[in-house]
Amino acid sequence: MDAETSAALARLIRSQRIAAFGTLRGGAPLVSLVSFLAAPDFSAFTLRVSRLAWHTQDIEKEPQVSLLIAEADDRRADPQTLARATVRGTAVRLAAAGAEHERLKSAWLERFPEAAVTFELADFSFWRVVPHEARFVAGLGQTYNLSAAALRAAAAA
Amino acid sequence: MDAETSAALARLIRSQRIAAFGTLRGGAPLVSLVSFLAAPDFSAFTLRVSRLAWHTQDIEKEPQVSLLIAEADDRRADPQTLARATVRGTAVRLAAAGAEHERLKSAWLERFPEAAVTFELADFSFWRVVPHEARFVAGLGQTYNLSAAALRAAAAA
Repeated sequence: MDAETSAALARLIRSQRIAAFGTLRGGAPLVSLVSFLAAPDFSAFTLRVSRLAWHTQDIEKEPQVSLLIAEADDRRADPQTLARATVRGTAVRLAAAGAEHERLKSAWLERFPEAAVTFELADFSFWRVVPHEARFVAGLGQTYNLSAAALRAAAAA
Repeated sequence: MDAETSAALARLIRSQRIAAFGTLRGGAPLVSLVSFLAAPDFSAFTLRVSRLAWHTQDIEKEPQVSLLIAEADDRRADPQTLARATVRGTAVRLAAAGAEHERLKSAWLERFPEAAVTFELADFSFWRVVPHEARFVAGLGQTYNLSAAALRAAAAA
């Protein structure tokens, strides 16, 4: 992946706030909507989810997940030219206190000010999706398969 | 689900052209982007995919899938208020000729004129996702679980 393509991937990931979150439910896929925050080096994608939500119940049982981060449909002629990235990885629940939690809380509230209420509710936790691999579709017929290391390299592009 | 909520679900499904498509790949979720066309009565969601694509290889082996149809992020304060619907169902490949194919081809080209080239390529097929159930998040804390019959009822609302 050349520098221009890496920069396009980094721009896509940093410009979007929501992702489609694929989990396993009863052995079949379930796709729901989540807000996310990418680590600056793309080594992790942080979610803040309620254990009342189906996707959280799913990842408590089966941590293999996928995220789709896509450009919003701007009603262009061909939606297949929208840039999108699929991440596949493992979901890990983070501790509800400590320095990492405080750092993430600040970053989360900066990006999602309306989420302040979730820090008053006991059922919300931070989870981290740790990528194993990624796939970037920069546009029609421009598909790149990336290792986790290549994804991190794109963050530095 | 009252008539107003049913109408909101029908509007959401009919207003969107793209969905996040969850498939099973090596037993783990994969989420990719697809264009879709809902049957007028929401009894099926038609996709047109290439067998060169990962998601098509996935559904050839394991037909259990999920679609997420979501409002595009309009940069409102709280993205968790975006309306979205998750469909879970079975993917079935459609015949490459015949009256149903011709009807779908017309409808597809009306919605996706740039997809004309896919009808010149042997690797593209129509697939139908037949819903088993759906989940509609109309906004924050407004979640409705729907049977396939209830989803069809929303189409008539």
